[in-house]
Amino acid sequence: MSAAATAFDWLYSPISEPSESHRQQAIDHQNQLTKPPGSLGQLEQIAIDLAGLQATAEPSINKVTILLFAADHGVVVEGVSAFPQSVTAAMVQNFAAGGAAISVIARQIGADLSVVNLGTVDPLPNLPGVSDQTIAPGTANLTQQPAMTSEQLAAAFKAGKIQSETATKQGINLLIGGEMGIGNTTAAAAIGCALTQQSPAAMVGPGTGLDSDSIRHKIEVVQRALTLHQDGLDDPLEIMRRLGGFEIAALCAAMISAAQQRIPFLVDGFIATAAAAVAIAIQPATKHWLIFGHTSAEPGHQLLLDHLQATALLNLGMRLGEGSGAAVAVPLLRLACALHNEMATFETALVADAN
Amino acid sequence: MSAAATAFDWLYSPISEPSESHRQQAIDHQNQLTKPPGSLGQLEQIAIDLAGLQATAEPSINKVTILLFAADHGVVVEGVSAFPQSVTAAMVQNFAAGGAAISVIARQIGADLSVVNLGTVDPLPNLPGVSDQTIAPGTANLTQQPAMTSEQLAAAFKAGKIQSETATKQGINLLIGGEMGIGNTTAAAAIGCALTQQSPAAMVGPGTGLDSDSIRHKIEVVQRALTLHQDGLDDPLEIMRRLGGFEIAALCAAMISAAQQRIPFLVDGFIATAAAAVAIAIQPATKHWLIFGHTSAEPGHQLLLDHLQATALLNLGMRLGEGSGAAVAVPLLRLACALHNEMATFETALVADAN
Repeated sequence: MSAAATAFDWLYSPISEPSESHRQQAIDHQNQLTKPPGSLGQLEQIAIDLAGLQATAEPSINKVTILLFAADHGVVVEGVSAFPQSVTAAMVQNFAAGGAAISVIARQIGADLSVVNLGTVDPLPNLPGVSDQTIAPGTANLTQQPAMTSEQLAAAFKAGKIQSETATKQGINLLIGGEMGIGNTTAAAAIGCALTQQSPAAMVGPGTGLDSDSIRHKIEVVQRALTLHQDGLDDPLEIMRRLGGFEIAALCAAMISAAQQRIPFLVDGFIATAAAAVAIAIQPATKHWLIFGHTSAEPGHQLLLDHLQATALLNLGMRLGEGSGAAVAVPLLRLACALHNEMATFETALVADAN
Repeated sequence: MSAAATAFDWLYSPISEPSESHRQQAIDHQNQLTKPPGSLGQLEQIAIDLAGLQATAEPSINKVTILLFAADHGVVVEGVSAFPQSVTAAMVQNFAAGGAAISVIARQIGADLSVVNLGTVDPLPNLPGVSDQTIAPGTANLTQQPAMTSEQLAAAFKAGKIQSETATKQGINLLIGGEMGIGNTTAAAAIGCALTQQSPAAMVGPGTGLDSDSIRHKIEVVQRALTLHQDGLDDPLEIMRRLGGFEIAALCAAMISAAQQRIPFLVDGFIATAAAAVAIAIQPATKHWLIFGHTSAEPGHQLLLDHLQATALLNLGMRLGEGSGAAVAVPLLRLACALHNEMATFETALVADAN
């Protein structure tokens, strides 16, 4: 690392545990509600977890912000994506215009969508609702050199931290992180291999839609990157710097920052979970504050969830990114809270309990 | 059957096919939206299916009615439930008071909740929002005699038909059916065995929360019912009459009626799917109009879904009934419609398509 080490100090600031007393109170409350115990399944568990995280008897998910980080990837020159690199910048314009999947979902669930451009190859004009925090026009090609300098990594982390802090100052109950970056399943797969010791053949998938020949090539690209960097992968910051991307690092930092501020973070799919895995490697207590929304159809996601001993709420076959898999889970979190807060108890409703 | 055969004639009135042209148009439209093809997974499939069912380019789920049928079961004297029989009537009061799980979910998703009492052992006063259409104070004990007379079966079917027609006259986009009836997993399991030829040991589960000894007893009760009625189970109406319940028959009829009126019906868990299996046995075309919301933790549900070659959208470990598993899927159906209707296309957003 050549950046001043102090640029990374904040990552190690302490993270609190959830409130065990509120968790326990929520478990007791669930058992008094007019339903067979356990019959709301994961909706009970979510309400209990949120009660502990929010340290309240009445968890809520009224106010949600989606942070959406976009950036390009130097590895795209290796031919690892079904879409051209220009799509990253074009999609940022699509986010600004409200036509992308996450734009629609954000409107539908009433969430704020905050788009941050960390650096695209195609230049972008000023766009409404898009914060330009360009670090560079994309990362370097990770098969040739580290994807980022340490200054760039520190800048990407800082962007994630600042966005997270800005959102939490607005009194949100939940933060969601999404990403856009042609080539970023390659970076996420390389990170996943470095953290889990799984092979590229297991971790690499079709991304936006590669055929089987192209997937074989992508596996070989990830293997070359892992070989090049093999002596520098014993530290999570170095894994992120060498193999990651600006948007992946920003997501990772936003998760750690949210945890430091006691804000639950709803994690999206493969790329966001690669960021989460690095965040947890940096500070294991980050994991308490993460909820996993949706298991991606990208095969590496399940491997990363297994590595983190995590289970996602939904499995709808989505594989889009942008935070979409997390955002579609928001209505279920809200239902879980409403059930917890509004159902009658056996006592108040005069319903007999089990024999 | 001793009821006039004409009382059942309406069940065989024709059911239309969904619009194949609108389905095909929706598939084409999905492929033009600014996302990798297929990347919204089941949300794409739902939008495509709803476009065909609603025969429109812009499917929507704005207006939803939940029909909730309650009734008691004579088989409860055999000791097949973890809860006392008085809970059926008490829960009807809880629905009226707005304290049950389905009451909360209905408010949260903005659905009308229409509760119909088809006959409880404990008498009920007039209750706001509850339609009293008592057929009898519960069914007969199916281990001793048919659960219903054919007049009772016709009345239960008619109640389902009338509720479905009343709801669809209000311009709904989707109908949901729920049930409440202590003992009704026993009836549903018996129906499931009769339709699928699965053994009671495979089909019977804990219901509201039986321990393993009580489950063994419940299996034996279902086996006795199947043995008693074995010569009368070659016709779906007789399966429902001998083994079903008022609320299960009403659900079955509501599904057939919805299909006859071209209204999609979102099916709940084990008991609702047993009703759906009978409806499909009566008129196979009913199946086109059914969407399955949630796979219940009650083990027989997966067997019934397999029998119907159906897949449910969610799997959250719920096993409550009341229509709750279906109702929690409504926000996802709405997201699927919004994505289909509001996302930009590659052409309008000037985003490059795949290489």
